[in-house]
Amino acid sequence: MTGADKPRGREPKLDTSPPRGMRDVLPDEVELRDRTLATILDVYRRRGFQRIETPAVESLKLLTRGEGGENEKLIFKILKRGERLSAARDAEEELADLGLRFDLTVPLARYYAHNHARLPQPLKAIQIGPVWRAERPQHGRFRQFTQCDIDILGVRSEIAEIELILATADVLSVLGLDGLTVRLNDRRILAGVARHCGFEDARFDSVFIALDKLDKIGRAGVTEELQGQGHGPRQVETLMGVLDDTGQGAAKPEELARRLGEDADAAVWRGLTRIIETVEQDAGGRFRIAFDPTLVRGMSYYTGPIFEIRYRDSASSIAGGGRYDQMIGKLLGRDVPATGFSIGFERVIGILGERGGADLGSSERTAFIFDEDTPHLVRILARARTLWDQGQIVLLELRARKLGRQLHDLKSRGFGRIVVFDADGQPRDADLTERTSEDRDV
Amino acid sequence: MTGADKPRGREPKLDTSPPRGMRDVLPDEVELRDRTLATILDVYRRRGFQRIETPAVESLKLLTRGEGGENEKLIFKILKRGERLSAARDAEEELADLGLRFDLTVPLARYYAHNHARLPQPLKAIQIGPVWRAERPQHGRFRQFTQCDIDILGVRSEIAEIELILATADVLSVLGLDGLTVRLNDRRILAGVARHCGFEDARFDSVFIALDKLDKIGRAGVTEELQGQGHGPRQVETLMGVLDDTGQGAAKPEELARRLGEDADAAVWRGLTRIIETVEQDAGGRFRIAFDPTLVRGMSYYTGPIFEIRYRDSASSIAGGGRYDQMIGKLLGRDVPATGFSIGFERVIGILGERGGADLGSSERTAFIFDEDTPHLVRILARARTLWDQGQIVLLELRARKLGRQLHDLKSRGFGRIVVFDADGQPRDADLTERTSEDRDV
Repeated sequence: MTGADKPRGREPKLDTSPPRGMRDVLPDEVELRDRTLATILDVYRRRGFQRIETPAVESLKLLTRGEGGENEKLIFKILKRGERLSAARDAEEELADLGLRFDLTVPLARYYAHNHARLPQPLKAIQIGPVWRAERPQHGRFRQFTQCDIDILGVRSEIAEIELILATADVLSVLGLDGLTVRLNDRRILAGVARHCGFEDARFDSVFIALDKLDKIGRAGVTEELQGQGHGPRQVETLMGVLDDTGQGAAKPEELARRLGEDADAAVWRGLTRIIETVEQDAGGRFRIAFDPTLVRGMSYYTGPIFEIRYRDSASSIAGGGRYDQMIGKLLGRDVPATGFSIGFERVIGILGERGGADLGSSERTAFIFDEDTPHLVRILARARTLWDQGQIVLLELRARKLGRQLHDLKSRGFGRIVVFDADGQPRDADLTERTSEDRDV
Repeated sequence: MTGADKPRGREPKLDTSPPRGMRDVLPDEVELRDRTLATILDVYRRRGFQRIETPAVESLKLLTRGEGGENEKLIFKILKRGERLSAARDAEEELADLGLRFDLTVPLARYYAHNHARLPQPLKAIQIGPVWRAERPQHGRFRQFTQCDIDILGVRSEIAEIELILATADVLSVLGLDGLTVRLNDRRILAGVARHCGFEDARFDSVFIALDKLDKIGRAGVTEELQGQGHGPRQVETLMGVLDDTGQGAAKPEELARRLGEDADAAVWRGLTRIIETVEQDAGGRFRIAFDPTLVRGMSYYTGPIFEIRYRDSASSIAGGGRYDQMIGKLLGRDVPATGFSIGFERVIGILGERGGADLGSSERTAFIFDEDTPHLVRILARARTLWDQGQIVLLELRARKLGRQLHDLKSRGFGRIVVFDADGQPRDADLTERTSEDRDV
């Protein structure tokens, strides 16, 4: 009846793949993602966190202020339009002044600076949404992916770190991820260590970057990298000595503090110790927390405690965050203490997916099969409505020519009950092994 | 303890507004949006629809094939990167080959063409997500907004239209929107009317575009516009005669069919009548459905029934859709019948927001207030955990200097119970009218 059967000339076929490095998500994975997000939101909301939203697009001025580190090189930029593009082309100006966000932290800082007067103080924010990075596509890394952050803005006390760590460890536990270890350090301790060892202040960052690779390249590798960069052998040796026995989560902060002597700031150590002890006691063995003086976390904006969560014996983290007390001040004109924790959502989905996904078949699913031209459609719809109103899933399906194959397909999609309506509109429960003459035709 | 108090030089302040035409969403509105989306998803999922996801970015080749009409002029294009940009600049080639999607229908067609072998047949898809259009910003229109579509791919029967209409009317009813009217027409009837009146085949589109404005500019306005475009006065007069008494939802399809005589395709009328009668009976008075031969719906890709839903006496729709049987064939190489219905999510949120939002205070909210340096933190956390585990919202708050103001703020944010912990870690329910000496200082 639609006229779509008419033959017509075909246009040249277009490549229907998603753009390079991006992906389509099939229904079963979307369901897993949605259920996971719902769990995350539920746990965080109970703790008084509230979701906020910013646009996907931000000004390039905001995105390229140096807070994004390497990510700033990976921005998808948006072409100016119309007259502004022509003018830019003529004048060899920038062709773009907007870009897709590469994380949710830089937009949060802008959001807070712009809206703070209308926001709860302190703000406990949840952000969930896509971010974009023009990375070289590789296995498991995509150019659009979902981030899931919580941030506390306006709390200087380490209660903020304690809340973020407990809430996020709880989220991961509720999702069924066991064997979690929280690793904790502080940027000010890293600086204290570097100072203690005699590295030049201006070159601390290169020390941290090398140290960050300890897990991957080992002590020999880090030593080699530091010496290769021209750091003195004595500084490097001192560093390795200080970290000896304290790395890899084995140490207590006070041991390192003792070694650092006057390069250790007592308040920093007290704060870190309070975080560890409080989290440890509340965790009650559900997960571990450990001081790790080699933990760096990549972003340059961190100013205090930094932390991550590892799953079982994986060498990379499934959540990471820290304190960044100076980012908002640069936009707002007055300092606002801030801490954040970001769940590696895609990694978590990967782990849950490998485990066979969420229990998607938990709710009862029924399919109703009837003839396209049935005169009993209203009655069939009314029957479905009764079940819908009870919260059940009922799929309406036209009877296929090959009923046996249709029953098989529906069963494999998780429809445990299939009701076939006959020509008189009478329902019967289908025997899922039945075949029709059309099936046998094949 | 964070070092953020140190005075330091300020950089020039950046404009912290979101980009032109885009917006930040504050926590209360996000909550309303999330609850609304959850309701929509729940109603559709019970009916066996499944959510799918595509990237926000698509190739410009896909986006500019003519399916998007005027929206194709509003695409945010993404600048090529690195060497590809330099090459394009030198050769005066296109500077962009990707763009942000302007709707969810064109990406759905690509998604289906690419993934059909791994998708349920027929596919009943839900899509919810942002789209971008570089429209001139004006009141209530944004350059990024959320669309919410359901589509049935692979069903030629009008059962697809019936399902889409009933499901979407149900969604809107569950959201509390009463006084709904479904208006229905068919592109083939529009073509039959235009043919019957003697308009030139090649100029049907301009007739439809004028007709689409009947609500806004009236019969005189449409007549004037058609004559101004050089359509013959006799054709225009015949058109007005045919539509007389049948427009504005007053007519039965068979009346118009009788007037059109042989320009009416019997199968089309039967299909339309079945949709109307079935929906009417299932609706049982919860909402109205009416044939409207002046209904056009903007997009050029529609091939059969078109429909929309209006709320009370509003002149514009809060949902719209139709059958588009030829779009997927152009990508896949074989025809796949398709119907879709899109809820105007931002309009729905606007209406719900004016009504005072969802009942956000329904779940019990408690705030715990304690001193920053309390030695009883672990005990306070354990107490909160008991309530979290029961599904309650408990916000942890450090005691502010002005407790009275803090209590007042929390109360206005919907925290009905506030527990203050004293120096010994003992809880007491706060009297929400209490003031402290610090409050009186002001």
